[in-house]
Amino acid sequence: MSVADNQWLNKVNWSESGLVAVVVQDDVSSVVLMMAWMNREALLRTVETGEAVYWSRSRKKLWRKGEQSGHVQKVRDIRLDCDGDAILLRVEQLGGIACHTGRRDCFFQRLDDRQWVTVEPVLKDPAEIYHE
Amino acid sequence: MSVADNQWLNKVNWSESGLVAVVVQDDVSSVVLMMAWMNREALLRTVETGEAVYWSRSRKKLWRKGEQSGHVQKVRDIRLDCDGDAILLRVEQLGGIACHTGRRDCFFQRLDDRQWVTVEPVLKDPAEIYHE
Repeated sequence: MSVADNQWLNKVNWSESGLVAVVVQDDVSSVVLMMAWMNREALLRTVETGEAVYWSRSRKKLWRKGEQSGHVQKVRDIRLDCDGDAILLRVEQLGGIACHTGRRDCFFQRLDDRQWVTVEPVLKDPAEIYHE
Repeated sequence: MSVADNQWLNKVNWSESGLVAVVVQDDVSSVVLMMAWMNREALLRTVETGEAVYWSRSRKKLWRKGEQSGHVQKVRDIRLDCDGDAILLRVEQLGGIACHTGRRDCFFQRLDDRQWVTVEPVLKDPAEIYHE
C-alpha cells in the first residue's frame, strides 16, 4: 500500500515542511517521555510496525527509536488532536529510558526560581547505551 | 524586569520563528490535555502570573488560556526538555475542559484500523462556552 493510498494520513494537518508534532507518553505511568516529529512516512511506518519511527530534523532522516540504544517504543495508542497538528503516542518504553542522556524522560529540567534545575537522575551512562 | 534580563529564557532553544512547543498535562490525572506554542513573552507571562499564556500561530497574538472560556490553566510545574525545544507544563485545568470543542482534552481522535475515531464526549457545548 503506497503512502498516497492512506486517506487517514491526509487528515493530519502537516506543516509546511511536512511534519507533525508528536507527544510521547508512557502507557503505564503516564509520564510524558519526550517530544518528537514525524513526516508521513514516519507515521506510516509507526503504524505498520507498531514501533515508533520519527523524523530527525537535525539529521534529516527517518529514525526508528531505539535503533542504536535498544530503547524501542512499542505503540499502544495513537491520537490526533482537534486541529490535526499534534499526535499523542502512548507507548511501552523498552528499557525504561527514553532520553539520549540516559534518563527516564527528556523533561528533566524544572524551572525553580527562574533557573532550570536538573531533577531526574541518569539511569544509564550514555556511553554504555551508545557503544560502538 | 524586562524580557532581555531573563537569563533562563535564553536557555530555551527558540525556533527560527521565536517559538517553543509546549505539552500541557493535567497535574492530577496526568492526562495530556493539549499542545500549544509559546514565544518569550508568553513564557515570561506564564511564569509571572502562574497561569498559562500561549502564542496563537493562527491569530498571531498572545492568548491567555481561558480568557474567553474561563478554562484557565493554573501552572504547577514547568519543565524543559534535553535539547531545549519543548516545554512540559503541568497544570490544574479549571472547569475540567481544555479543548475548544468542549472536551476534556484535545487528543480525542484515536487511530483505529486506519481511521480516526472520536472516542471522548463533549462535556459542554462550545456555544455555551464561547457565548457573547
